[in-house]
Amino acid sequence: MQPASPSRAVGTRIVLRTDGDSVAEQEESLAGEEPLQLRAAGPGQDPVDIAVTMRTPGHEEELAAGFLITEGLVPAAALVAARFDVADPAATSQPENQITVRLSAAFDAGLVASRAFVATASCGICGKASIEDIERRCDPLAEGPVVTRSVIVGLPETMRRAQAVFESTGGLHAAALFTAEGQLIGLREDIGRHNALDKLVGAMALRGELPLHERVLLVSGRASFEIVQKAAMAGIAFLCAVSAPSDLAVATADRLGMTLIGFLRGERFNVYSGRQRLSL
Amino acid sequence: MQPASPSRAVGTRIVLRTDGDSVAEQEESLAGEEPLQLRAAGPGQDPVDIAVTMRTPGHEEELAAGFLITEGLVPAAALVAARFDVADPAATSQPENQITVRLSAAFDAGLVASRAFVATASCGICGKASIEDIERRCDPLAEGPVVTRSVIVGLPETMRRAQAVFESTGGLHAAALFTAEGQLIGLREDIGRHNALDKLVGAMALRGELPLHERVLLVSGRASFEIVQKAAMAGIAFLCAVSAPSDLAVATADRLGMTLIGFLRGERFNVYSGRQRLSL
Repeated sequence: MQPASPSRAVGTRIVLRTDGDSVAEQEESLAGEEPLQLRAAGPGQDPVDIAVTMRTPGHEEELAAGFLITEGLVPAAALVAARFDVADPAATSQPENQITVRLSAAFDAGLVASRAFVATASCGICGKASIEDIERRCDPLAEGPVVTRSVIVGLPETMRRAQAVFESTGGLHAAALFTAEGQLIGLREDIGRHNALDKLVGAMALRGELPLHERVLLVSGRASFEIVQKAAMAGIAFLCAVSAPSDLAVATADRLGMTLIGFLRGERFNVYSGRQRLSL
Repeated sequence: MQPASPSRAVGTRIVLRTDGDSVAEQEESLAGEEPLQLRAAGPGQDPVDIAVTMRTPGHEEELAAGFLITEGLVPAAALVAARFDVADPAATSQPENQITVRLSAAFDAGLVASRAFVATASCGICGKASIEDIERRCDPLAEGPVVTRSVIVGLPETMRRAQAVFESTGGLHAAALFTAEGQLIGLREDIGRHNALDKLVGAMALRGELPLHERVLLVSGRASFEIVQKAAMAGIAFLCAVSAPSDLAVATADRLGMTLIGFLRGERFNVYSGRQRLSL
């Protein structure tokens, strides 16, 4: 599967722009948003419908791989050898909006059925049960990196400089992975913050680099329960967010032993959980 | 059902706050995030599981009513007389995290089954099919209001002043409804932007005030396809967002004849669709 063409990841539009008394027509960039239907199948198995997500076109294989891993549906090791098929162009008008992950072992359709009614939240009916479910499904987080304050406050600017698409649309979430010394390893963007993280995790998985025990993750928006859960499933023990975490995100980070930093802006940040990994 | 206690909508946490060279412990507010399981049933009918959404506790009846309307599952008129039940405390440890909407007519479970695999995105497999589906399901938008520039640029400040919870956590999305003259009619907040809009639409529906043809909607974040879809299902023809719209959001607004304004900040904004409702 090819990366999306620029015309699908970013569109343009003539808008009426007003600023004070001035009113003028101007070309603006728009972030692409299209649905992606995700399916999985083992050898000789009919593909199982898993989810449809609204995403920014591009990096579909990584998004599919990351979703399967961070939702606990397929172990990371099984994705390295997977094939990825788009739909048959004879069967649908938008073959690029369906991706089927072909695994070398059977895919357990029961995993999807048992969780179908929680597709939006990717969690159980109560936060406590959800947290226990994550603890059960993901391996314990490693000791993880120790990171200095100067590295932490430098992460957002490094991410921003790498966000070429963000510069043009202002409409995309980003997830970036760093070494403990603040070196950028990977960056993915999407109109959905969970998709940006899934693309990033998938990219690392397809290179055989999971679990990401020694890495530092930065996300551009808020830190929700879902972001903490997905990071934990990828083995990440150090999570930073530009904006606020929720109470359930903090409680989950506590239980998992994850370092959670929020409101990372300029010279300031808040440490909500896991202070032992900070060198201040 | 009572509104959530302050301790569930907003929590507190002692965090380590760093700013330049200073490091100090400080109490910070956290937005509440809990799952809500939503179910619907007609007379004598077993409740049908519809969705689980991560939401900020509070206004559960409005969230349930709004979700059913904006997802096209139940007509607005049927919600006015609905009853709302929480779970049996003897059956679950978190009865407040399940709500069952009791309707006076049977609930069509087939509507949920046919759309189960698109629960996350609330849309079909292709953008075009989705837009046509909305056009089919929602009544045509009315002529709608005509709004002046001075009213539009004043909306964000009016919303911010009303966001008491936002002030304390910085972690919530908001959706606000205004008259064409800029008078605030309603405001709801949630950790999920779609939930904030559903709560707002539900609040209006429970007062019998749908469709909202003459109102102006402001949302705090980006304008995605899902936000345009939900606004259209409530009859809203004038949508403003503080941040960027996606390309599919703009295309959908075009097709529906909705006015879509983005990047509404300070004295500036961009008009992406529906210029005829602006008086500049």
